[in-house]
Amino acid sequence: MNETGLSEEEIRKILNDSKGKDLKYERVLSSMCTYPHKIAIEAHMQFIESNMGDFGLFRGTYNLEKEILSSIGDLLHKTNAVGYMTTGGTESNIQAIRSMRNLFLQSPEYQKSASNGQKCARPNLVVPDSAHFSFDKVSDILDVELRKASLDDELKVSVESVKSLIDENTIGLVAIAGSTEFGQVDPIKTLSDIALEKNIFLHVDAAFGGFVLPFMEKNYEFDFKLPGVTSIAIDPHKMGLSTIPAGVLLFRDSHQLESLKADTPYLTVSTQYTLTGTRSGAAVAATYAVMNYLGKAGYRKTVSRCMELTDYLLDKLAEMDIHPLIKPVMNVVALEVPKCDIVRSRLAKEFNWQVSITQNPHGLRLVIMPHVSFEMIDSFVSDLKKVLDTL
Amino acid sequence: MNETGLSEEEIRKILNDSKGKDLKYERVLSSMCTYPHKIAIEAHMQFIESNMGDFGLFRGTYNLEKEILSSIGDLLHKTNAVGYMTTGGTESNIQAIRSMRNLFLQSPEYQKSASNGQKCARPNLVVPDSAHFSFDKVSDILDVELRKASLDDELKVSVESVKSLIDENTIGLVAIAGSTEFGQVDPIKTLSDIALEKNIFLHVDAAFGGFVLPFMEKNYEFDFKLPGVTSIAIDPHKMGLSTIPAGVLLFRDSHQLESLKADTPYLTVSTQYTLTGTRSGAAVAATYAVMNYLGKAGYRKTVSRCMELTDYLLDKLAEMDIHPLIKPVMNVVALEVPKCDIVRSRLAKEFNWQVSITQNPHGLRLVIMPHVSFEMIDSFVSDLKKVLDTL
Repeated sequence: MNETGLSEEEIRKILNDSKGKDLKYERVLSSMCTYPHKIAIEAHMQFIESNMGDFGLFRGTYNLEKEILSSIGDLLHKTNAVGYMTTGGTESNIQAIRSMRNLFLQSPEYQKSASNGQKCARPNLVVPDSAHFSFDKVSDILDVELRKASLDDELKVSVESVKSLIDENTIGLVAIAGSTEFGQVDPIKTLSDIALEKNIFLHVDAAFGGFVLPFMEKNYEFDFKLPGVTSIAIDPHKMGLSTIPAGVLLFRDSHQLESLKADTPYLTVSTQYTLTGTRSGAAVAATYAVMNYLGKAGYRKTVSRCMELTDYLLDKLAEMDIHPLIKPVMNVVALEVPKCDIVRSRLAKEFNWQVSITQNPHGLRLVIMPHVSFEMIDSFVSDLKKVLDTL
Repeated sequence: MNETGLSEEEIRKILNDSKGKDLKYERVLSSMCTYPHKIAIEAHMQFIESNMGDFGLFRGTYNLEKEILSSIGDLLHKTNAVGYMTTGGTESNIQAIRSMRNLFLQSPEYQKSASNGQKCARPNLVVPDSAHFSFDKVSDILDVELRKASLDDELKVSVESVKSLIDENTIGLVAIAGSTEFGQVDPIKTLSDIALEKNIFLHVDAAFGGFVLPFMEKNYEFDFKLPGVTSIAIDPHKMGLSTIPAGVLLFRDSHQLESLKADTPYLTVSTQYTLTGTRSGAAVAATYAVMNYLGKAGYRKTVSRCMELTDYLLDKLAEMDIHPLIKPVMNVVALEVPKCDIVRSRLAKEFNWQVSITQNPHGLRLVIMPHVSFEMIDSFVSDLKKVLDTL
């Protein structure tokens, strides 16, 4: 920033140059984000100054948020679920676990041992080994011990492993509906039964899968229909085709949300449940617009096309004798490819393709988002073949 | 969300109705946000799909972020300060205190007492009583005891009170450069000396004042020029005229930032220091655009006009024998008004003005943001007079 400032033309030139250095999504097969829908962008612009941190000033936007929560609650089989629009999956996960922790620390048993001057037990959380890295942040931020349960052959969490990790200081379980690496769905019905039996919370991270599973032909049980599920994270800015930042956190019961309450003097509203203060109303309007424009049929079409593309990709790869680590449940593919780190870096360097890597088991990972086309897959497969032929 | 979705026209009608229910900023005297600058909006749109959660894909946007950090570091007297663009002041405050807490918990002294099985001391943080309510969130989230120091007659934090609250478990101090309620600046030079003497961190919350103080005629010492200041929160989406969500957190030393590190498998980059995962690149581009378009001279002009309006308001009010609780340091005014809760609610109900309330001392609070005009002040003062005359 200089003293006098630049002209509009100078600013536009710098922005255009910078934009040119950003990858276009047409070369990206590694991300769970995509181009927002054009009606989402239009709504985002119209509400650009709206601040949901003080929603008393923005009652119109706030009503849109309430409608979104009720629509997503409906989609997840609990219309009266309570929550709010977050900045995305990480905030949703932090807040869900913070609620578990706060209620654990407020429990009479914990309070009693604390007042006796005993060294207090550290609360722990049991998560699948496939949980998103945001749970490592959760553990650090909230000072909750993370216990990682192993995965079975299908890369779902092992129920036996989960059971073996639960003790009297376990505040809850996490299940994944669409794991970041493999797109796998944990055995959530069984985890729900365990949570009920042990009287602990169960948070479902459906940040990615939440806008996929309800729109598939096969019926997956992962949401509030299961009585042990107490909270869900679902991201409109991933497969919901909204703008960033648009996440949603929903709780089954209001006392979970209440445990996050902060008093807010000097605002038009007196309490706040959110992690952040100032909060994008633009992304709220964007989410409302795209959800109600597409409707369930629109999302069904989007998901169906992504799955068609996924099947097409797998057929092409099978011809080259390349196979997925697990049969993809959704539009996330992890491939058994030799020397996949080298393959990944050569795809980037020689052909400008961005793919990513799964850790355990090691594989080449692709996410088939709505920006992917048949032509893009043909071109990618052809480039992958060139790399493999010269490995 | 229904089955088939609505038409574009239906969506636009609902959005227009909702927009009509949002207040226009021309009636808002209570908020620290305002209309973003038009060049910020243009840049925001151009980069709408950019996700800084995986900035390896968006190298152009990432370079803009680096330039912003270096410009703001420069503005705050430490060009090589390290940090990142947050969602706003609350995230910046959480992350600054999280860094203090993590480094405290990692200290050999703490580790020794922990490994001896002793009941570990709870870390505490000394904040001014005027600190933003986000510090109550910080305390809850991070499990840090909040010790609130009293204010002096000028509503600055009392240095004696701060000193009396420090003990061996104090991880750091917070100073406010532009308090939310009063726009007051704490005696940060003295607090810096104390922090150095006690060898503890000092975080400056300049979320509001950071884009005001450097552009005033009077010189305020509040930033990295003071050797005890270890981190600063400053929000481009407040007086920086950028779009939401645009906050900045800067640390003096990289080891503070390093204490927030999380590993990020399956991204193009291997570590992340942010609280959220997916992160708006649009707000990065917007911030770059407006900062470099306005330049320091542009912000100086904005601040100068806000202060001119503030003086104009105070002159008008003095004619009605209404006086501020303290002489305003910046464009935040807290007024001594009888029955101010009733006055506030009547201003809203009868004249559609949004003002707010300070708690201690009790007063009517106004923020004179760039959307305020002389006409708006004339009209507000006239309506306030009507309310007071019929109280």
